[in-house]
Amino acid sequence: MTAPADGAAPGAPPTRYTADAVVPCDRPGVVHRPGVVEVTGDTVTHVGPAGSGPGRPPAEEVRIDGVLLPGLVNVHCHSPMTLFRGVGANLPLDRWLGEVLWPREAQLTADDVFWGMSLASAELLCFGVTTTCEAYFFEDALADAVVSAGSRAVVTPGVLQLPGHPSDHGWWERRTAEIVDFHGRRDGQEGRIEVGFAPHAAYTVPLPVLADIAEECRRLDALFHIHLAETEGECRRFFDEHGVSTPEALADAGVFDGRVLAAHSVWLSDGDIERYRHHDVAVAHCPQSNAKLASGVAPLVRFLAEGIRVGVGTDGPASNNDLDLWEEVRLAAMLARIREGDASALPAAAALDLATRGAGRAIGRPDLGVLAAGSKADMIAMRLDDPGFVPLLDDEQMIEHLVWSASGRLVRDVWVAGTRVVAGGRCLTVDAERAAAEVQQRALRLQQVAG
Amino acid sequence: MTAPADGAAPGAPPTRYTADAVVPCDRPGVVHRPGVVEVTGDTVTHVGPAGSGPGRPPAEEVRIDGVLLPGLVNVHCHSPMTLFRGVGANLPLDRWLGEVLWPREAQLTADDVFWGMSLASAELLCFGVTTTCEAYFFEDALADAVVSAGSRAVVTPGVLQLPGHPSDHGWWERRTAEIVDFHGRRDGQEGRIEVGFAPHAAYTVPLPVLADIAEECRRLDALFHIHLAETEGECRRFFDEHGVSTPEALADAGVFDGRVLAAHSVWLSDGDIERYRHHDVAVAHCPQSNAKLASGVAPLVRFLAEGIRVGVGTDGPASNNDLDLWEEVRLAAMLARIREGDASALPAAAALDLATRGAGRAIGRPDLGVLAAGSKADMIAMRLDDPGFVPLLDDEQMIEHLVWSASGRLVRDVWVAGTRVVAGGRCLTVDAERAAAEVQQRALRLQQVAG
Repeated sequence: MTAPADGAAPGAPPTRYTADAVVPCDRPGVVHRPGVVEVTGDTVTHVGPAGSGPGRPPAEEVRIDGVLLPGLVNVHCHSPMTLFRGVGANLPLDRWLGEVLWPREAQLTADDVFWGMSLASAELLCFGVTTTCEAYFFEDALADAVVSAGSRAVVTPGVLQLPGHPSDHGWWERRTAEIVDFHGRRDGQEGRIEVGFAPHAAYTVPLPVLADIAEECRRLDALFHIHLAETEGECRRFFDEHGVSTPEALADAGVFDGRVLAAHSVWLSDGDIERYRHHDVAVAHCPQSNAKLASGVAPLVRFLAEGIRVGVGTDGPASNNDLDLWEEVRLAAMLARIREGDASALPAAAALDLATRGAGRAIGRPDLGVLAAGSKADMIAMRLDDPGFVPLLDDEQMIEHLVWSASGRLVRDVWVAGTRVVAGGRCLTVDAERAAAEVQQRALRLQQVAG
Repeated sequence: MTAPADGAAPGAPPTRYTADAVVPCDRPGVVHRPGVVEVTGDTVTHVGPAGSGPGRPPAEEVRIDGVLLPGLVNVHCHSPMTLFRGVGANLPLDRWLGEVLWPREAQLTADDVFWGMSLASAELLCFGVTTTCEAYFFEDALADAVVSAGSRAVVTPGVLQLPGHPSDHGWWERRTAEIVDFHGRRDGQEGRIEVGFAPHAAYTVPLPVLADIAEECRRLDALFHIHLAETEGECRRFFDEHGVSTPEALADAGVFDGRVLAAHSVWLSDGDIERYRHHDVAVAHCPQSNAKLASGVAPLVRFLAEGIRVGVGTDGPASNNDLDLWEEVRLAAMLARIREGDASALPAAAALDLATRGAGRAIGRPDLGVLAAGSKADMIAMRLDDPGFVPLLDDEQMIEHLVWSASGRLVRDVWVAGTRVVAGGRCLTVDAERAAAEVQQRALRLQQVAG
């Protein structure tokens, strides 16, 4: 048994963090300089300018040299793929999948996934990413690594027939039942694990199976997390086979009626975008993965104008190759400006929103990605004593610097659910040296069995 | 008087650096694991696998935990604009120039430029950038800051009539003569300063003036550094006025006959690209500036296929907003892949070349951006004990990691001309705290006089 997640008795006095600046991200552009955040147990109980607050004497006063923000939320990731980071990278995508990735994935063990996820957790936390939405296999091992790292995840076990899986219809039912069982066992664990479902894509999972999974998601109020409209070729082939676009097929099958998160969403017609809006489908925007793999540039500005919920994701480290969500924020702004031909498209505050408040909303978690009374006490402290923050004349410039000239390298301290997990840039919860050695040795083994 | 630049008598024994890996960048993809670099004075005298070399006993043995690379070369920069980093960023470009930037630049002093460049030098060196090609005003102060920081620059003083300058033709002649004088006084200083000319652009400097400057450049074998074809609007207006494209006008005026570096080069016709190739015009590719300002995406893959010399540049920190050249390397690869619709366009080794060997060649300095016998001893050491370098199974993966998952944050030690200027991530040569305070106070003054 583990301790209760909130770590504090009801009514306990808060811990008060006073910082040079607090950027709460609950509304674009707001900065408290200096600012205060009060935390009781695993929850934020007050945010405001320094000196504000309910006035209860704190149990502890913590002085932060730098700026406090909410922990970032990475809405689309396959983090254990650290095991395949930078492997066979100069092959075309189809050969890379067939000759490099799938033969290795067919040999994965639960322990491989535990160590891949542990290394990723250290990396994510040091970049200031406190929540990831994970789609992968060996979900128990993945969740074990997240719990052990002290971080937070929406674990959405993958549904996909890898080479070697039995291809009968019963396989889909058994896999779905496994995830329902996993949900029953682990959803809500430690207050830091949420369980959803990740059927891979409409071109790899039969529509009736997607509809069944969507129904389970509605029953359990679980996230339905799917790859959608990532490449032009995939969309064209689906249309040729079914006579309708992928979003139209999914909407018709009732799949869009629950909490749906559609990763990539690069190739959508006006009608498809209207379907997203109408069904409140959220987008996991993965600009770096889409650029590196030449998939294209999603219509981000249009999504936001339509009120569609959007967060950014790194995608897996086999195709990105790191887990630095700050790069996705900058790249989202740059690609939006190129796509629109407009240097004022996606201002800095709107870009930052994609990794904070907007990302929390995209996965249906308004308690994540913001610092506000009632939100989870997931926080990051960044150094300000860096040329990237100079000069600093007003609040607007603070947001500009956070997006354009600061980055993950300036994250010094990180808290998840009120507990410090990174101090002075060092992850306290993962033995990163051990994790690196394990991943190295396991990647070597997987290369040998695949080779 | 200062000491001789090479810091060693002829025939002196070398310093031998042995590292876990050496990536010399003189040919794409080469990795020595482990490797050795020997340095005599300010020059590299041997590079190869550990244990190789001429066998002279070294004066000193230095063991490097990590990977050694050549210092990066930033081929287009206005570094003192750290003074304007993130100022007034959400205005359209024309209002930003007219209402924010130019009123401030009109009030600049030489001391402002010294401190802006000093802060930039600390930032550049800590990112592993040892050479920048600088276009700005107050060139003596700029060069003073570079000399004092122990870094290296091609200083190309700007030729541009700011608001308030007298607009007679004599002004252009006096400004050109000033730069010729500056060249005479400071070209070659300490072995670390080279002097060129930076007439701003063909739409701001009259063609006959550009031709005169080009002639001075040929006479002095100096770099002619110009903004060219940055925005579609600028190109269209030039064509409407002159009836030929900007590159055609410059080629016809004889401007392309010397050592020419054309920054941006986004909007070029096939004929213009052929003019670049024919006249061996080099390109300073600035993908982040071009994306952030919605200028467009230059045809990088085409340039390289034509054998045109290309390096990457950050542009100034008022429009980028940081001096992290690693981001330009990654972004160059991503934008090339989107532009070409090809995930194998610009592999990692070709991307890294743009900040190393290719960048040295673009500014006509094959002794920079490589570690090879005869090259300048400008080196950087990066930590390998980071998740971004795990797993590491072969040499190809080392290059992948350098480009895609490592970055400036992992640079620990930096040498320029054989002298260490960054140790353990801290710049030894610039008082960064003082420089930050100076820039902050000067930015505040410039805001007040401009406001």
